[in-house]
Amino acid sequence: MRDAEAEAAVDYADLTSAAARGAGVVHRTPVLTSRTVNRRVGAEVFFKCENFQRAGAFKFRGAYNALSRLAEAGEQRGVLAVSSGNHAQAVALAAKLLGMRAIVVMPDDAPAVKLAATRDYGAEIVTYDTKLTTRDALGERIAREQGLAVVPPFDHPHVIAGQGTAAKELFEEVGPLDALLVPCGGGGLISGCAIAAAALAPGCRVIGIEPAAGDDATRSFRTRTLQTCHNPDTIADGARTHSLGKITFPLVLRYVHDMATVTDGELLRAMFFLWERMKIVVEPTGALGAAGLFEGRADVRGGRIGVIVSGGNVDLTIVSRFY
Amino acid sequence: MRDAEAEAAVDYADLTSAAARGAGVVHRTPVLTSRTVNRRVGAEVFFKCENFQRAGAFKFRGAYNALSRLAEAGEQRGVLAVSSGNHAQAVALAAKLLGMRAIVVMPDDAPAVKLAATRDYGAEIVTYDTKLTTRDALGERIAREQGLAVVPPFDHPHVIAGQGTAAKELFEEVGPLDALLVPCGGGGLISGCAIAAAALAPGCRVIGIEPAAGDDATRSFRTRTLQTCHNPDTIADGARTHSLGKITFPLVLRYVHDMATVTDGELLRAMFFLWERMKIVVEPTGALGAAGLFEGRADVRGGRIGVIVSGGNVDLTIVSRFY
Repeated sequence: MRDAEAEAAVDYADLTSAAARGAGVVHRTPVLTSRTVNRRVGAEVFFKCENFQRAGAFKFRGAYNALSRLAEAGEQRGVLAVSSGNHAQAVALAAKLLGMRAIVVMPDDAPAVKLAATRDYGAEIVTYDTKLTTRDALGERIAREQGLAVVPPFDHPHVIAGQGTAAKELFEEVGPLDALLVPCGGGGLISGCAIAAAALAPGCRVIGIEPAAGDDATRSFRTRTLQTCHNPDTIADGARTHSLGKITFPLVLRYVHDMATVTDGELLRAMFFLWERMKIVVEPTGALGAAGLFEGRADVRGGRIGVIVSGGNVDLTIVSRFY
Repeated sequence: MRDAEAEAAVDYADLTSAAARGAGVVHRTPVLTSRTVNRRVGAEVFFKCENFQRAGAFKFRGAYNALSRLAEAGEQRGVLAVSSGNHAQAVALAAKLLGMRAIVVMPDDAPAVKLAATRDYGAEIVTYDTKLTTRDALGERIAREQGLAVVPPFDHPHVIAGQGTAAKELFEEVGPLDALLVPCGGGGLISGCAIAAAALAPGCRVIGIEPAAGDDATRSFRTRTLQTCHNPDTIADGARTHSLGKITFPLVLRYVHDMATVTDGELLRAMFFLWERMKIVVEPTGALGAAGLFEGRADVRGGRIGVIVSGGNVDLTIVSRFY
């Protein structure tokens, strides 16, 4: 994708446009409520369930928006993503739906189930030896040689605008909220959601929740200087990003009201609560917002509170390991 | 409850009445779809998700209908249920909402988590030694002594009418279907759902699915003579009933089009598929209909197919035991 775009701000009109492109393709995911949760936290809580999104996570929103624009422009021979997680499957599925070629660059020790899922969507897989290669450099070389557009996992205006449609749908369905809790990794989801909040519910406080072991975004937010975390050791594999991005960091500073962290223990407890009581399968990263809510990281009492449940792609053996 | 009622047939007007009583109390549960499932079975499938019902299973529908009528009549001092499963929690919650006293008779080796959940809803628990007492006799004695109405788990017109509102909602939401697959234990759910189908979608074939180890309903259906199974050894704990009931058996013969069985292995495979791919937590009994669909127990190709997912109350350690 063109570097010039990287400097363009994302605004609410971009979300509206992304929503229009996604209509009939991106799932309008359900909003679930729980009397048990409401009683427990003393608030009225609305869970926006992106674990029911296509390919199992919000990532499909951004990927589809970005790829549909590339397909329209017709300048590229296909797309390339560097990811071992939900972004990989999202790009693979979006490319398949749009009839585009997709190459996904994954580490050679990625779980077989993730390789298979990405390949099932029709993407070509290129693996790399994690000891020998830096994956981004490899991805850029392949993209250059084969005329492919690299689709970054979060730091791109079209990706951010797509992710923001999750919160846009939530506000449209339930009206204004007092606070919105959003999982935070590279900041694509929370940036987009905060832009939606600013437009549709200006009084709504947007609070990012990240794993304590990878607290770079919280530190960046507090110091207003971009901080990094190298390979954070957390069960929240979707939030192991090293830092916010060049585009997402300024958006977080501008639109997000607070950031907080939860430990892996708190995260797992929240995740299994969602499984047992709300009967939904959520991945660890997907439970960050709920964990922040349950652990009192935001003042929610008496309010109307939104929580983005960001994904549900989890290996079920997590139960025997951590339950 | 009065014996005279046991002879009254249940008809669609009873379902309409149950739906009106439950409005605003019983959850209108979501209907989920999956492109993956549709592709896999070559049909358009609608899953009615009673795992999202209050107290985690369809049982609340019947319990609330029966108890609200008892509360209105005002003849009893409270209610009594004999159950270690979803019926116990459903009666306990319905009683709490209606301000009624509830006693639940459970075996003394019932899982602590089920005892706690039932007690949390405010019911009094009476345990019995499974080696010494027959539970139904004990329940009847306590009910007589204390002036309580016994609420049977399935063989009662008000219970059956309540359960049928699940299918009523499904037809109202998605229109007529070609087939409806329903888990079958004592036959309360399938009787009620089949009455809804006869009224709202007369062309719809209603097919009951039960565990192979407890195939009494299938044998009863084929022979048109009530058959029994003593303590069937199946993971589907909600379908370990010994036989259809005096009321449900004639209703099954009249309204149900076919019965089939699935093995525990097929059931677990279907259950984990629902967890992994559809991101919903379903209990083994709750996955009976889905297992029947996936294993080809009904001719569904090209059709519009409904599946009742009946409950989601499952101990998560099932993953480490069977995944």
